[in-house]
Amino acid sequence: MERDKFLAAIKPRMPEKRYIHTIGVMETALHLSGKYGEDPTAAETAAILHDIAKYADEDWMRTIVKEKGLDSRLVDWGSEILHGPIGAWIAETEFNIKNEDILNAIRFHTTGRAGMSKLEKIIYIADMIEPNRKFVGVEELREAAHENLDKAMKACISHSIRFLVDTEQPIYPVSIECFNDVISRNA
Amino acid sequence: MERDKFLAAIKPRMPEKRYIHTIGVMETALHLSGKYGEDPTAAETAAILHDIAKYADEDWMRTIVKEKGLDSRLVDWGSEILHGPIGAWIAETEFNIKNEDILNAIRFHTTGRAGMSKLEKIIYIADMIEPNRKFVGVEELREAAHENLDKAMKACISHSIRFLVDTEQPIYPVSIECFNDVISRNA
Repeated sequence: MERDKFLAAIKPRMPEKRYIHTIGVMETALHLSGKYGEDPTAAETAAILHDIAKYADEDWMRTIVKEKGLDSRLVDWGSEILHGPIGAWIAETEFNIKNEDILNAIRFHTTGRAGMSKLEKIIYIADMIEPNRKFVGVEELREAAHENLDKAMKACISHSIRFLVDTEQPIYPVSIECFNDVISRNA
Repeated sequence: MERDKFLAAIKPRMPEKRYIHTIGVMETALHLSGKYGEDPTAAETAAILHDIAKYADEDWMRTIVKEKGLDSRLVDWGSEILHGPIGAWIAETEFNIKNEDILNAIRFHTTGRAGMSKLEKIIYIADMIEPNRKFVGVEELREAAHENLDKAMKACISHSIRFLVDTEQPIYPVSIECFNDVISRNA
């Protein structure tokens, strides 16, 4: 089974806590896929692999960005922003995943982007609301996710930007493109 | 006197309430200039002219952006973002202001930008905290302005982004460049 193969591949690359988070994202993504009519296998694969690069070396990730011609804006950013695009690159090159929708769901799971697909939204949201997540406001995000996918996406990206402002962390411009896109759709 | 000439020029271009706001920005900018060692005449001129394009026609402003080769990103945005750069263009072409620092203070008074000068910060902050401004949180911004200019700039741009997120208004990317720059300086 692909699921078992992918789970076995990610387990040694992350601490136990992150593995448990990943299982939570997988279960939440499967639930949202059923609810909103997305392919469950695609959701499962994207969810399992979404954090595969989370603990990869930052300098190595920057080298990959340069050598493989990924978005050049990435080189000025840290692991928090790099691990999505690099995770997609690993999924493609090491696990031979060719489904661009799955790769984009991994690529943009931290930042979002303008024009996200249903699968991308499901992984982005599942990553924020999976059962092990505990932060002020997470219940409202969970409620939104059970109501309407676009409403949940708006609530999640808004929460994320607010969090970065409040904690004085830099905001990746693609997240603002995501926010501006999401609010223009009037969910 | 330049002050009287500029005041007479802006008065017919805006409602009474906006004129009173402008006087408030002027007085606050003069106060901050004295406190932080900025040229008071430059601060006065930038403050008086900062909203000169606030009520200009949006289509006309977009035409100017295209014809005069201003930042091409502006054409997709409304009056709230256009009136700063167009105000700077009016200050330069109609009032013959050549001091680039004054023009930038007008140009970026709504959005901020990365690498702001002292004068730019003073006008940006004065616009948010002048005595007629009444919003939740303005007192904290005023206190920060009396303490440290960079701390106030961080508080103001953070407040502005939070406000846009909370009210579901699009965020101009240059404001994010401003925020990322300001927090990287550790004020």
